[in-house]
Amino acid sequence: MTSIQEHVLGIAQGAKKASRILSRLPTEKKNKALGRMAEALIANAARLKEENTKDVTLAQKSALSSALIDRLTITDKTITEMASGLREVASLPDPVGEVTGMWRRPNNLLVGRMRIPLGVIGIIYEARPNVTADAAGLCLKSGNAVILRGGSEAFHSNLFIADILQLEAEKEGIPREAISFFPITDREAVYALLQLEDLIDVIIPRGGEELIRAVVEKSKIPVIKHYKGTCHIFIDRTADYEMTEKIVLNAKCQRPGVCNAVETLLVHQDIAPQVLPPLITRLQKAGVEIRGCSQTIKLLPDLNQATEDDWYAEYLALVLAVKIVKNIDEAMEHIETYGSLHTETIITQSYENSQKFLKEVNSSTVLVNASTRFSDGFQLGLGAEVGISTTKLHAFGPMGVKELTTTKFIVLGEGQIRE
Amino acid sequence: MTSIQEHVLGIAQGAKKASRILSRLPTEKKNKALGRMAEALIANAARLKEENTKDVTLAQKSALSSALIDRLTITDKTITEMASGLREVASLPDPVGEVTGMWRRPNNLLVGRMRIPLGVIGIIYEARPNVTADAAGLCLKSGNAVILRGGSEAFHSNLFIADILQLEAEKEGIPREAISFFPITDREAVYALLQLEDLIDVIIPRGGEELIRAVVEKSKIPVIKHYKGTCHIFIDRTADYEMTEKIVLNAKCQRPGVCNAVETLLVHQDIAPQVLPPLITRLQKAGVEIRGCSQTIKLLPDLNQATEDDWYAEYLALVLAVKIVKNIDEAMEHIETYGSLHTETIITQSYENSQKFLKEVNSSTVLVNASTRFSDGFQLGLGAEVGISTTKLHAFGPMGVKELTTTKFIVLGEGQIRE
Repeated sequence: MTSIQEHVLGIAQGAKKASRILSRLPTEKKNKALGRMAEALIANAARLKEENTKDVTLAQKSALSSALIDRLTITDKTITEMASGLREVASLPDPVGEVTGMWRRPNNLLVGRMRIPLGVIGIIYEARPNVTADAAGLCLKSGNAVILRGGSEAFHSNLFIADILQLEAEKEGIPREAISFFPITDREAVYALLQLEDLIDVIIPRGGEELIRAVVEKSKIPVIKHYKGTCHIFIDRTADYEMTEKIVLNAKCQRPGVCNAVETLLVHQDIAPQVLPPLITRLQKAGVEIRGCSQTIKLLPDLNQATEDDWYAEYLALVLAVKIVKNIDEAMEHIETYGSLHTETIITQSYENSQKFLKEVNSSTVLVNASTRFSDGFQLGLGAEVGISTTKLHAFGPMGVKELTTTKFIVLGEGQIRE
Repeated sequence: MTSIQEHVLGIAQGAKKASRILSRLPTEKKNKALGRMAEALIANAARLKEENTKDVTLAQKSALSSALIDRLTITDKTITEMASGLREVASLPDPVGEVTGMWRRPNNLLVGRMRIPLGVIGIIYEARPNVTADAAGLCLKSGNAVILRGGSEAFHSNLFIADILQLEAEKEGIPREAISFFPITDREAVYALLQLEDLIDVIIPRGGEELIRAVVEKSKIPVIKHYKGTCHIFIDRTADYEMTEKIVLNAKCQRPGVCNAVETLLVHQDIAPQVLPPLITRLQKAGVEIRGCSQTIKLLPDLNQATEDDWYAEYLALVLAVKIVKNIDEAMEHIETYGSLHTETIITQSYENSQKFLKEVNSSTVLVNASTRFSDGFQLGLGAEVGISTTKLHAFGPMGVKELTTTKFIVLGEGQIRE
């Protein structure tokens, strides 16, 4: 065992030990600790910004992209948001101990399911230092120990935030190791972590598709994946024009850089000649570049032609692919072929088609007559969001604190044996 | 790409395509197909036994163990059980399409969760040919395509069973690829399969710990794991003797070779001198070898001494480790240190300790005053059992058909957009 592997093993063993204490921690203690953490972040704002400046200066010297430096930079607003995030998590119901159902068996055994924490959660993330506080808060509330491994660009910021959180946790009698910070930015260390399936219960990578694929490749531990969001809106033959314009504009333009923004518009051929010219003019006015299928180009010859790659694209920018389809079946076929199982909307006044779309499209969020932007834990009513899973195991779609738990069977008997 | 990789890719693509049809299949069609399959197995019993004889003869020539040959051999009873298993699965409620909850958001969006199939399930199993029919039935009922990869020892039997099932499925308009049989027993082919994370949603290995660890090591696809069952019974200070004897005998002797049989007995020190001598005499009469801790040996000097390895052991035989503990806390500490998260029972008349044990022991099934042998999908009321998961992600403990599904969010709007 190399010294790095030994060090990583020590961190994971510490987290595992802490997880046993955490799983039994009263709700009140968890909420008090979260409140303390929020206060301490605000109280240490000046020093936190100093630490952050070290990271930002290094990033500027290394000529990292301005988008990355933007995600890296901590402002007073970032700090207030981290603090209110922690307070919000404190206000959520505690999922641990909830009995999700009980039933009696013919032999009089009473059988139920009780929610328990997963155990130890590894979070591997990139440049955003606010993830340190957000993830720690969600894991604490759900009774899990967390191992945080942030990007090297945010090292000073992450270390300082983790230190504050650990200190405040300790004041409520929670061991520091409940919030384990992974101080080694070496790749070898991450790979060593991903081998420890007996100590760590799940890995949640938060970052680009490349990071996630690399983690899956190396991990023996189950990984909850968020690959990408190639979201669709299907404008059915009976769609109301006003509603269509409102929803498409919102889904594309309100925040184009996020995973639940729409990337491809599918339009019923019978309504395309009426809907597309005014809608595209409106989108272009909002700065959106349109890439159309050959039928769309026939209607509007000035547009750029979409290539095969466009149907797969997650632009995360003011670009929209447009395709005219024969009917709802062709629309659903397109979504199955090119989609990413993230979020799809139908705009329709047809009861039959609304039900068909809801039932047959198996993406993680399927909407009727609403913006794709609602595919978000907070918007759907789960409280704070841990991430969005685009694979079906354990959780599919936006994940709340409940998705950081599992259930065990509990059985109350009076001496029953198997015959 | 090697020709084996190409072949494996073809099978997985076929299963993926079939899974889209399956996810939309009406309940009635699935149930009819299951009924047909049951009938066809009975009707083809003679030919099936002929095919099985080929496997058994080869196994005997290769001098495989008698336990393996026993698991491999198909009798009329095996065939009847496979058929009634398929009929039982047909009688279960269809999990697909169930809406598990709906709520209204402040902006009037109606949000819910709808159960959908996982998609494509890979089952990797060893010598038992009945798994072919059991697994195919459970996957069909839950709307999933299945890729079956059985052990090479059972090749002729598995191929014949799969062929029957495929033929009957086709008669109900279900594509053969819904039940894909993997005809290559080559290891390279399994490894190739385990890389196809975009086509296969989950792998369920059914077999020994070695098989499961090898699959986890190689797989990019999530694996539902059933490692082992080191199950405990804790006899508390207030345990009723008669109940204790009944439960311990049942948990150890009724079927010692299964994963929910008890392997270690923990006994409160205050009650040990009264309970252990008669209980151990009773167990020895039933043919059980006892391995005791040093305190147990002080009470009963003729017993064998347990070593550290005994506390971890899953004997799957008439052997029982016995340890005297100070109190419930030491018992739970022992379970945490040596247990396998499978199944634990407390025998007690203390309300406080029953609640403490239920709450704080985080194994997949935790019982009060009942035999560990109830940790079984059918016994707990889930209907047929897919397996028992001893890891916490997606499912923990016995898995029914519901555990072969996930949920998507469905959202009903009237033009809502994000502000």
